[in-house]
Amino acid sequence: MSNNTWSRHHILSLADFTTDEYDTVLQTAASFQEVLSRRTKKVPTLQGQVVANLFFEASTRTRSSFELAAKRLSADTLNFASGSSSMTKGETILDTAKTYLAMGTDIMVIRHREAGVPHAIAQEMDRLGVKVSVLNAGDGQHEHPSQGLLDLFTICSLLDPDLPRVELLKEKKIAIVGDILHSRVARSNIWSLTASGADVHLAAPPTLLPKLFADYCENTPGKVFLHWELEPALQDADFVMTLRLQKERMSAHLLPSLREYHQMFGMTHSRLQLCQPNVKVLHPGPVNRGVEISSELMDDPEFSLIQAQVSSGVAVRMALLYLIGSGRA
Amino acid sequence: MSNNTWSRHHILSLADFTTDEYDTVLQTAASFQEVLSRRTKKVPTLQGQVVANLFFEASTRTRSSFELAAKRLSADTLNFASGSSSMTKGETILDTAKTYLAMGTDIMVIRHREAGVPHAIAQEMDRLGVKVSVLNAGDGQHEHPSQGLLDLFTICSLLDPDLPRVELLKEKKIAIVGDILHSRVARSNIWSLTASGADVHLAAPPTLLPKLFADYCENTPGKVFLHWELEPALQDADFVMTLRLQKERMSAHLLPSLREYHQMFGMTHSRLQLCQPNVKVLHPGPVNRGVEISSELMDDPEFSLIQAQVSSGVAVRMALLYLIGSGRA
Amino acid sequence: MSNNTWSRHHILSLADFTTDEYDTVLQTAASFQEVLSRRTKKVPTLQGQVVANLFFEASTRTRSSFELAAKRLSADTLNFASGSSSMTKGETILDTAKTYLAMGTDIMVIRHREAGVPHAIAQEMDRLGVKVSVLNAGDGQHEHPSQGLLDLFTICSLLDPDLPRVELLKEKKIAIVGDILHSRVARSNIWSLTASGADVHLAAPPTLLPKLFADYCENTPGKVFLHWELEPALQDADFVMTLRLQKERMSAHLLPSLREYHQMFGMTHSRLQLCQPNVKVLHPGPVNRGVEISSELMDDPEFSLIQAQVSSGVAVRMALLYLIGSGRA
Repeated sequence: MSNNTWSRHHILSLADFTTDEYDTVLQTAASFQEVLSRRTKKVPTLQGQVVANLFFEASTRTRSSFELAAKRLSADTLNFASGSSSMTKGETILDTAKTYLAMGTDIMVIRHREAGVPHAIAQEMDRLGVKVSVLNAGDGQHEHPSQGLLDLFTICSLLDPDLPRVELLKEKKIAIVGDILHSRVARSNIWSLTASGADVHLAAPPTLLPKLFADYCENTPGKVFLHWELEPALQDADFVMTLRLQKERMSAHLLPSLREYHQMFGMTHSRLQLCQPNVKVLHPGPVNRGVEISSELMDDPEFSLIQAQVSSGVAVRMALLYLIGSGRA
Repeated sequence: MSNNTWSRHHILSLADFTTDEYDTVLQTAASFQEVLSRRTKKVPTLQGQVVANLFFEASTRTRSSFELAAKRLSADTLNFASGSSSMTKGETILDTAKTYLAMGTDIMVIRHREAGVPHAIAQEMDRLGVKVSVLNAGDGQHEHPSQGLLDLFTICSLLDPDLPRVELLKEKKIAIVGDILHSRVARSNIWSLTASGADVHLAAPPTLLPKLFADYCENTPGKVFLHWELEPALQDADFVMTLRLQKERMSAHLLPSLREYHQMFGMTHSRLQLCQPNVKVLHPGPVNRGVEISSELMDDPEFSLIQAQVSSGVAVRMALLYLIGSGRA
Repeated sequence: MSNNTWSRHHILSLADFTTDEYDTVLQTAASFQEVLSRRTKKVPTLQGQVVANLFFEASTRTRSSFELAAKRLSADTLNFASGSSSMTKGETILDTAKTYLAMGTDIMVIRHREAGVPHAIAQEMDRLGVKVSVLNAGDGQHEHPSQGLLDLFTICSLLDPDLPRVELLKEKKIAIVGDILHSRVARSNIWSLTASGADVHLAAPPTLLPKLFADYCENTPGKVFLHWELEPALQDADFVMTLRLQKERMSAHLLPSLREYHQMFGMTHSRLQLCQPNVKVLHPGPVNRGVEISSELMDDPEFSLIQAQVSSGVAVRMALLYLIGSGRA
């Protein structure tokens, strides 16, 4: 696995990822994907190291994915869930992080409902001059880099399983549909897809897609386009990424009913006919069936990459832990 | 360990278990019981495999037992508890199961408050053509097969520690006392005990023991008998299985007071005198002391098998994970 | 690691610890501290053994520390948290402990809000004639021995990293400041520090420091002194241990406002000038910043040992698990 060029110590955002870094992640993940196809899906890479999952915001899916990735690299894992935490006792987040540092944590995987928390912790670790790495597992509405990378890996390894690389996406058209405004997944994906040279078409009701998104990624190889209706985004699209709709948005009057949303922006087999014939549909999960995507389409292996995304998640997270973990040797 | 004849892929119910299958489980569990008596209680059987405990209904005891069984087979474990789950986010149960499948889970251990959930998940896995195994850890009021098997193992290995087998139970009389109507433990036990040739005598107040139970197990070697009072069930019994009483039954007017219940159906030393002299008492736990069973009797090692049941639980669950896990090689 | 003289089976209290026992813990912890400085921080000492963390009272910090210590000794760990437990189902605490015993637990680490629970469980285990060890991880307002030992180790290994031993503390002056009355940490520390020959000066408002504490440790090498204001306790002190203030004490009218408390008993840089020039400050965590201790002082590596305490915690808990665990071979 080619990590001799890897120098990034924390993974906080995809905003400044280089093409080389994307390709290193993709190819390292491909190696681990191969490991995962064996009967014994374990490697001793991080034996004796400690990965602490500090999930200040509840999550089953992402936490399990990181936990499994860590265990398959033979790391020991510690799980912190905000419910039973000392946070309820008035300690600051930095104090909690420093406590896990002092216990001997090597890599901290951090999710928090506030944007910037993983960055603040990484900054503090650097200020202290310690070698611990921080991995952002979702911070508020800001970024979710491992999700962006696993989506990229899912797409690129479909296009070339042997050598997934970002240049495969050059001039592809990718639609991102849904609650762009509140989505950290969308933000990470916009960075990775435009950096790979794809054109990204955002589609959502105007309340969920403000004009400011037009300013994203000005100097990247790919471009960003905004649409307040679905059809132009789907026209000849190679991939359609649907986003999870938070039901609380409706009570905030940002959304009509779920039924109306599905009629205007929900993905269905019939809408796919606007796209390229071999179009694929993604969703970060968990899906509200019949809202962002029809149940039939979600379960159709010809078009849906949703299960592949979950599988890719473990391989990509193994790659990330491996890359930042072995740089620490 | 003799698993060359094992072909069952999921363990969902004991209704169609064969005598050979029971005996294979009993003898495999006996081998693991021997492993557990060593200082290093671990074997590498499931190294690199993933056992996901998907407990949609809270449980400490059963979850810990499965978790420990998996760890002693060197599997990696993932725990899902419904509280902090994406289920609260509107995903279906099948979607959750498919997510764990896509992450690379090899065996899913599933508990759910609705009967049939493990079956539905197993069916979906088979439809998808994947090799993952499903183990029912309790579904509603339907079945709890690993409890039924550990009870069987506890009894048979008492009768012959070297070669526990179901024929040892032929013509034994076994009383099952308590809330039969709502008990998944009772249902699994009725299958295993009648299949082993034992006569099963059910005893409970009429509100907790409807006549329909007379129809259970019509063509099995052992027979089922119903009693609305305790004494005829205890008469010359070899084993007495008491069931946990859910206190919420009282508010539903299915029960008199706990005190009255104990007076009519609670097991005590004096009531044991109706039974065979070397009678033993079981309870799946946790016990309401002084309700289903007197505190003195529960703690009396001459009669109580309650601790042995818990120990058997780990060995039997190791056997089950081993049998379905190594069939997957 | 010199454990040939270790005979203690449970660790419940420091009240009767001998100097030899303290020194054995300190020197064993020093060996593990060295292990923890390696890249692979794992030893196979407790391979195949089971450490169950039975935390009837919620805790992240202490539970994670014990869990990591156990994993670094290669033990398998089981976590019990009171929230999702069978305790809510009416089982007694002893029944829960016996269930974990029957599953095959080798060491039980127990925290409970009631004083004496770990002792009661240890007594029951001894009565049953089983080899399981009990480690008190905090019982009510009674004791928290592993915290007392890690504080001792933090101080002694600062004084002599190569050979930490209690005689290093002879005639040192150590102040313990804060809510002495309700603190199990204070009680464990008073035992370890006076046994080591240090003079212990307790300082707190009279509501939080009743006169009866003067009777503590009458025949120990070190002596206990009571102060209802801070200054005499700090005068020429070598170490200052601050205690966590439970905010609920205020509503019980035992305390003025937090601000007033900080003004009277909070540690600051300026107050340190009363102490020895190389004084160090400790706190068991989590800290209420700006209450027990000023934020600036807490983060000042010249004076604060708070991070060192957390690191010491893992090494000391490895030592304790090792000492009681290998005595079981």
